[in-house]
Amino acid sequence: MNVQPSARARILSTARELFHSRSYVDVGITEICRRAQIHKGSFYHFFPSKRDLALAVIDDMAAEWARGFVGEAFDPALPPLERLDYMVDAVYYWQKAAKDLEGHMPGCLFGNLALELSTRDDVLRAKLTAVFQRANTRFRDTLDEAVETGSLAPVDTGETAAAMLAFLEGVILLAKTQNDPEVVRTLGPAIRTIRIDHHHGS
Amino acid sequence: MNVQPSARARILSTARELFHSRSYVDVGITEICRRAQIHKGSFYHFFPSKRDLALAVIDDMAAEWARGFVGEAFDPALPPLERLDYMVDAVYYWQKAAKDLEGHMPGCLFGNLALELSTRDDVLRAKLTAVFQRANTRFRDTLDEAVETGSLAPVDTGETAAAMLAFLEGVILLAKTQNDPEVVRTLGPAIRTIRIDHHHGS
Repeated sequence: MNVQPSARARILSTARELFHSRSYVDVGITEICRRAQIHKGSFYHFFPSKRDLALAVIDDMAAEWARGFVGEAFDPALPPLERLDYMVDAVYYWQKAAKDLEGHMPGCLFGNLALELSTRDDVLRAKLTAVFQRANTRFRDTLDEAVETGSLAPVDTGETAAAMLAFLEGVILLAKTQNDPEVVRTLGPAIRTIRIDHHHGS
Repeated sequence: MNVQPSARARILSTARELFHSRSYVDVGITEICRRAQIHKGSFYHFFPSKRDLALAVIDDMAAEWARGFVGEAFDPALPPLERLDYMVDAVYYWQKAAKDLEGHMPGCLFGNLALELSTRDDVLRAKLTAVFQRANTRFRDTLDEAVETGSLAPVDTGETAAAMLAFLEGVILLAKTQNDPEVVRTLGPAIRTIRIDHHHGS
């Protein structure tokens, strides 16, 4: 019974690497099975469809991020606004390491899949929306704390958080287009300047 | 001799629509020819490869934008910072119209192709980088004018322009993920708050 978890894990890590370095549509199940050294029959035992595999890849990567550098960046021991700088730095070092290894900056897997698939797969779109929503909550909680502790003038923290997340995704997009992680380091710190004030007289 | 330009135009508009509503890899030359009612032999007369087609689609769309709503948004008769609001509005109405028609928000064709292809095609990547660079110049010229006329405190206009373009692409990305053009209208106006100051003692 030990074989099954490791076979599933091999499929997951192979698919994640291929989806991230290329795209979802460009990578077929046959190639994933070949590279993961899995029989196609076993594949369908773990994942009834390619979409099911992509859902698991997204969950897997989101969980790893939450435990890893996103968790570190949003360390409650850091002053709240410094967590934003830490997050930008983490994105920079991650993209730079990937480029040094593979020759090309892969960008954000979630952003890549979102632009590739959102018009065509509402199930994957909903999954990615949930991932972004959780990231949004981290930013919003951080901004709430910054406002409470006086390091940030009052803003609409929910909308400002969403705008900051959008900015980070957009910076990664431009950096990937130029294949230059330095773009993240040059533009990223401007995340702190973004603000959306309360509307509607509140 | 009248047939050739119109056949080429049919291929271009069909490919653009399909690449935009789905993706580059997902759409094959056979499907493009069928929908455009072109023989495959004629296709290769106009475009030696799918990449050549994509290069032409990008040029075609960039030229149309420059003549169309981007040209209108960056109208020199408008106060410079209002051009940014106009650009955000134009993106909103464009995405809303596309969603009303097709059911899904297609996002920015350039951003979509950039995330899909940048790791795998340096020729298309360079073309998209040039498109973003021209957009960047429009933003920078606008910010230069705003600083000169006193409506904006001095900033590093080149880097701030790039950050604003990144923000716009990121907002479109989040809106496409949620399939909700209203996200553009809610978050987009924060483009005005982004700023990157001069570094290095200048």
